[in-house]
Amino acid sequence: MTTDRLDRVRRRLADLDVGALLVGPSADLRWLVGYQAMPLERLTMLVVPADGDPTLLVPTLERARAEASGAADLVRVETWEETDDPIGRVADRLADADATQGPLAVQDQLWTSFTLALQARLPGAEWRAGSTVTSPLRQVKDAGEVAALHAVGAAIDEVHAGVADLLRPGRTEAEVGTDIAAAIRATHDDVAFVIVASGPNGASPHHELSSRVIEDGDPVVVDIGGVLDGYCSDETRNYVLGSVDPEYQDLHDVLEEAQAAGVAAVRPGVTAASVDAAARAVIDDAGHGDQFIHRTGHGIGVDGHEEPWIVAGNDTELVAGMAFSVEPGIYVAGQHGARIEDIVVVTDDGVAAANHRPRGITVA
Amino acid sequence: MTTDRLDRVRRRLADLDVGALLVGPSADLRWLVGYQAMPLERLTMLVVPADGDPTLLVPTLERARAEASGAADLVRVETWEETDDPIGRVADRLADADATQGPLAVQDQLWTSFTLALQARLPGAEWRAGSTVTSPLRQVKDAGEVAALHAVGAAIDEVHAGVADLLRPGRTEAEVGTDIAAAIRATHDDVAFVIVASGPNGASPHHELSSRVIEDGDPVVVDIGGVLDGYCSDETRNYVLGSVDPEYQDLHDVLEEAQAAGVAAVRPGVTAASVDAAARAVIDDAGHGDQFIHRTGHGIGVDGHEEPWIVAGNDTELVAGMAFSVEPGIYVAGQHGARIEDIVVVTDDGVAAANHRPRGITVA
Repeated sequence: MTTDRLDRVRRRLADLDVGALLVGPSADLRWLVGYQAMPLERLTMLVVPADGDPTLLVPTLERARAEASGAADLVRVETWEETDDPIGRVADRLADADATQGPLAVQDQLWTSFTLALQARLPGAEWRAGSTVTSPLRQVKDAGEVAALHAVGAAIDEVHAGVADLLRPGRTEAEVGTDIAAAIRATHDDVAFVIVASGPNGASPHHELSSRVIEDGDPVVVDIGGVLDGYCSDETRNYVLGSVDPEYQDLHDVLEEAQAAGVAAVRPGVTAASVDAAARAVIDDAGHGDQFIHRTGHGIGVDGHEEPWIVAGNDTELVAGMAFSVEPGIYVAGQHGARIEDIVVVTDDGVAAANHRPRGITVA
Repeated sequence: MTTDRLDRVRRRLADLDVGALLVGPSADLRWLVGYQAMPLERLTMLVVPADGDPTLLVPTLERARAEASGAADLVRVETWEETDDPIGRVADRLADADATQGPLAVQDQLWTSFTLALQARLPGAEWRAGSTVTSPLRQVKDAGEVAALHAVGAAIDEVHAGVADLLRPGRTEAEVGTDIAAAIRATHDDVAFVIVASGPNGASPHHELSSRVIEDGDPVVVDIGGVLDGYCSDETRNYVLGSVDPEYQDLHDVLEEAQAAGVAAVRPGVTAASVDAAARAVIDDAGHGDQFIHRTGHGIGVDGHEEPWIVAGNDTELVAGMAFSVEPGIYVAGQHGARIEDIVVVTDDGVAAANHRPRGITVA
């Protein structure tokens, strides 16, 4: 990695008149300095002042990990001992950089306990969410990031290609999920999540796994993701064991049309909301509007969910390099559900999908 | 589950003159209402006012998951739609309960972005860390929780019993780690973490896994944990491939004595700091004080790391039902390291270990 991203953050801090960005273990930290730290009760914090050098403060026992990550090539690494006051150390670094006058930006996912301690230490400061600094930068991917998203998209395609063989009547969602997790581990560096939602469980969009036995005729929503070289995959397809109920087929036909309409609406210059509207219009027109109970998509990159949100009211203009899911769903409580999801990347003149599995129902 | 824990929290809020406790996806949420939610950008929040009924606010798409968790038997579940303002809904519930006058407690791990949004909405409120409300309750386990910690302790003992067979010259830490993770999955509900730190990597306490090839003669620190029925395990043992270097044996003998001294110091009425001091004195006396670079332990329960912290300066008095690790370590940069860790539970008249594997070096 280079200091390019740190430099861009510092220029943005100056533009926004924000004194510093404070970053704990998070996708922001990985994106900025390549250090994957666990969010734990001991403070790890990258202090990036608008003026002055950035510092990564880590507990002594994590010094070796931090240095092995390569972060030490980009920023000064300082350690604190178990009986030190790390919040005081952060305040000192901010004072050194004259950064306590302007507002301070704190990475969105930082634990509230740390932010409250910082607020108590710096009672005069104003505070704002770190995403106001980093999201506009992170959401536009460079060529290397786009390539990484296509590579991890191909990896999850490969996992989906094997899912039909794992779905057999009599197996539980949990058993199928275990096999899918193994397939994700075989093609990615890490498993992010595994949703196997069979029969009526398909009507719960964030259902994960259960002991429900999958039966002949069940539709099964399979929404899975992993991490490869630091970038996330996320792809949903719908399977049916045995013969497809005509009512489910009709619903899925509407969904397939809606997903295609959402993707077709993607190009530079349109708003995020317009992509949501394009997918939603198809489902509304077919009379299923009240069964599409979530936004159409979310950005993706070093984090599984990040900006831009593909949702009504988001006037963010799409630009080449933005990457997000297009994943409309239709959920019929007590019966079944369906969702089709691809990751797409905005190109100079349109859109490129990172996932290429057939989007129709796969009969298992 | 019953509402007993919610009732105790509400009594404590009244005692502390705190208006309400706000809890996002976390161990606090699991402990209070049994709901395991993913920390994501959509707000999930349990609002527990000192007066008035608690409410669990969830995104509509997670309603089915929340209800399936059993939380709906304990608290009212409310949903918000994708284009609603969930922070406003939390503020409304606080106003309904006249809870905005006193200070508000926010669960420690809640994302800072939510807390900043709450602060902007309720500019007059005072804020404090939720652990000031929940930790004194959570850190003293009831009989069912103690039994769960012993059960998950036995499960991780079983995994350690198989580790020596996995350690062979020529295998990488990552390969061994994959096998250990499978063994944790076979004995637990979930894997929490896997540290396999061979040779010089053993000198980095939070080293996880690497592509380093383990060689004959290497010491290997294996620190592993999982989750079973909602409670966490965490146990560290040291292995050597082939013959043990006498210098490493001497260091390990000191460590074994220190760990035993720490455990022997545990009983009701002494301070957490005194347990740290007892273990540290042995290592200091042997001249390795500056190589023991972390506290002696951490509490454990529904979270892998929770109060009480076994560290200098913590005057918390131990009481029966507290559970924590006793895990001194000695780290020689560039050479090797060792750490011995058991989970122990304070009993009415002393201490009971939840782990029972031999504490000496295991030759693999």
